[in-house]
Amino acid sequence: KQIVLLPGDGIGSEVIHSARQVLDAVTERFNHTFTYHTHDIGGSAIDKHGTPLPQDTVSACEQADAILLGAVGGPKWDQNPSHLRPEKGLLGIRKALGLFANLRPIKGFPQLLHASPLKHEVVEGSDLLIIRELTGGLYFGTPSERSHDGKSVVDTLAYDRSEMERIIDNAFKSARLRRKHVTSVDKANVLESSKLWREVVEEKKAEYPDVTVEHLLVDAAAMKLITAPTQFDVMVTENMFGDILSDEASVLTGSLGMLPSASIRDDGVGLYEPVHGSAPDIAGQGIANPLAMILSTAMMLRHSFHMKEEAQVIEDAVQQVLEDGYHTKDLDVKGGQLVGTVEITKQVIEHVT
Amino acid sequence: KQIVLLPGDGIGSEVIHSARQVLDAVTERFNHTFTYHTHDIGGSAIDKHGTPLPQDTVSACEQADAILLGAVGGPKWDQNPSHLRPEKGLLGIRKALGLFANLRPIKGFPQLLHASPLKHEVVEGSDLLIIRELTGGLYFGTPSERSHDGKSVVDTLAYDRSEMERIIDNAFKSARLRRKHVTSVDKANVLESSKLWREVVEEKKAEYPDVTVEHLLVDAAAMKLITAPTQFDVMVTENMFGDILSDEASVLTGSLGMLPSASIRDDGVGLYEPVHGSAPDIAGQGIANPLAMILSTAMMLRHSFHMKEEAQVIEDAVQQVLEDGYHTKDLDVKGGQLVGTVEITKQVIEHVT
Ligand SMILES: CC(C)[C@H](C(=O)O)[C@@H](O)C(=O)O
Ligand SMILES: CC(C)[C@H](C(=O)O)[C@@H](O)C(=O)O
Repeated sequence: KQIVLLPGDGIGSEVIHSARQVLDAVTERFNHTFTYHTHDIGGSAIDKHGTPLPQDTVSACEQADAILLGAVGGPKWDQNPSHLRPEKGLLGIRKALGLFANLRPIKGFPQLLHASPLKHEVVEGSDLLIIRELTGGLYFGTPSERSHDGKSVVDTLAYDRSEMERIIDNAFKSARLRRKHVTSVDKANVLESSKLWREVVEEKKAEYPDVTVEHLLVDAAAMKLITAPTQFDVMVTENMFGDILSDEASVLTGSLGMLPSASIRDDGVGLYEPVHGSAPDIAGQGIANPLAMILSTAMMLRHSFHMKEEAQVIEDAVQQVLEDGYHTKDLDVKGGQLVGTVEITKQVIEHVT
Repeated sequence: KQIVLLPGDGIGSEVIHSARQVLDAVTERFNHTFTYHTHDIGGSAIDKHGTPLPQDTVSACEQADAILLGAVGGPKWDQNPSHLRPEKGLLGIRKALGLFANLRPIKGFPQLLHASPLKHEVVEGSDLLIIRELTGGLYFGTPSERSHDGKSVVDTLAYDRSEMERIIDNAFKSARLRRKHVTSVDKANVLESSKLWREVVEEKKAEYPDVTVEHLLVDAAAMKLITAPTQFDVMVTENMFGDILSDEASVLTGSLGMLPSASIRDDGVGLYEPVHGSAPDIAGQGIANPLAMILSTAMMLRHSFHMKEEAQVIEDAVQQVLEDGYHTKDLDVKGGQLVGTVEITKQVIEHVT
């Protein structure tokens, strides 16, 4: 298996380093051989190559079976013109590889649930998977430009029916592996694109008679995530709505620093990254929490390599480390032991081997 | 003053009736003369006139100083083709009258805060005003249509600079009357429209040196509303983001049934409506909570008629009724007295006269 590592910016290289060490332990235990190739993306790529997404990086990713990405961005590049912003690297690689499905599982860790802004009885038991369309909609539609006189501006929310079909299909398939309930989110009372979306969901439904489906308007979904998060199983939505709702959902369980994500396509190739950002303020201090990155490698093993047991071993190890009371600075574990990136990684590895 | 009443659907006519009674008490006490004109909108207008927004209604609203709207929508019309949906009436009247600024104040009532899904220490003290652009963006941009072969679809997010200027200006002015802090929400790392938006905010800032400004990406805003709602004063954003974020914010304080809203333009004309919906399930039972509608009339008195004292009298009365322990079925007041629409309205009126 060929794996491309894209450390990116800020704490990216630290958490990628941890993830790599955990993978080494897993491959040794299970006798796999993974080959790693490290490439630049984001701000560090701008600094070294003058572009957030060097052609070299794209080529390497095109040949990879999976990609692990740390994080991109930082204040250093915040004032750059838009083609020289770190995020363009991330958007570019998603699009170049056709990674159309962004999977964001959100499940509370019992040890961290007390850090949730929600009341215990509201959040307890929540376990949802948000599936966001990632290569269409407002993010990539054209025109996306200012008029010549600067007096008006336009962005375009464009979708092909086939783009909707494949992501909605993915949601139904994912629901089958879970509690068999899909919440489709749109704004069908206003947007034409949402009306087509809803039609496609209704059509697809027939192929999955064992899965129940609910339609929710995006504004109602934003409310229900807070008032009744346990009532969701799989939520599927288009790119912009998914960006907002998945970030909203990420703070519900009090463990933002623990959340992995996958951006995949149908042949199994995927890019895996933590939900948290590059945290430039704590970069290089050895205190970054690598657990979301490590859990992202578990998603890689499961989704891209079909290595279920290996993935489970990593997830159990992370769970065990929390149960043992180890935590990094961002996590507030009562009566636990505060450790740095190196030490918590070592703890995970001990449970993996 | 000419006031158009648009009861709409579901509990709309019940809460409008309550609001009218409260206004009668206020006009009597302060010696004003308001003239009322009732017109159809939404589902009931579809049933009677075959359109959710009869020309007659538009004409009446065009001549009004202010409009009070109950609520529109219901399952009866959910399967209708899009031009025959109740919401089109609401969207149509906003656009026809140029009501470009939607103001949604969100402030917890101490008596109701225990019903919040958020922990007490997270939500306590939150008091924000969300200002949403209401007549531009994805809601009204063209093209908004499906291709002839049905294989693709497009919606358009279009803004003129002048549309941005007036809503952002409104936000700065509003902030001056409050805690002098503006949070501008956009997606400037992806959307061209957001880049222009951010530029306009930066320009306007110079005119209001006493107001502090923060830019927040929409995904980050969706998170921060939950983790740190007290850190907002005025939030301003475009139409679609505002729809999502204002509904998200509306559930934070546990008093969705208490929230008023105003949709205004620069000359003071405005449409006032509760944030909650038409609640068809409880319509006609005499148990609807009219307080959000009543508080919307207070917003009308303040914004459209500059009757500050009168507005305050209503707001104090509602506060007093809650303190006295009266509540409708949707509100959970510990040790309080459960009453219906008529009785709680009577209680408000007692404190108004
Ligand atoms: C960095 C940004 C462009 C990106 C997005 O909006 O897709 C991020 O917020 C995400 O959700 O991965
Ligand atoms: C009914 C709907 C079209 C409307 C909107 O999205 O603007 C509503 O959600 C609102 O926020 O007033």
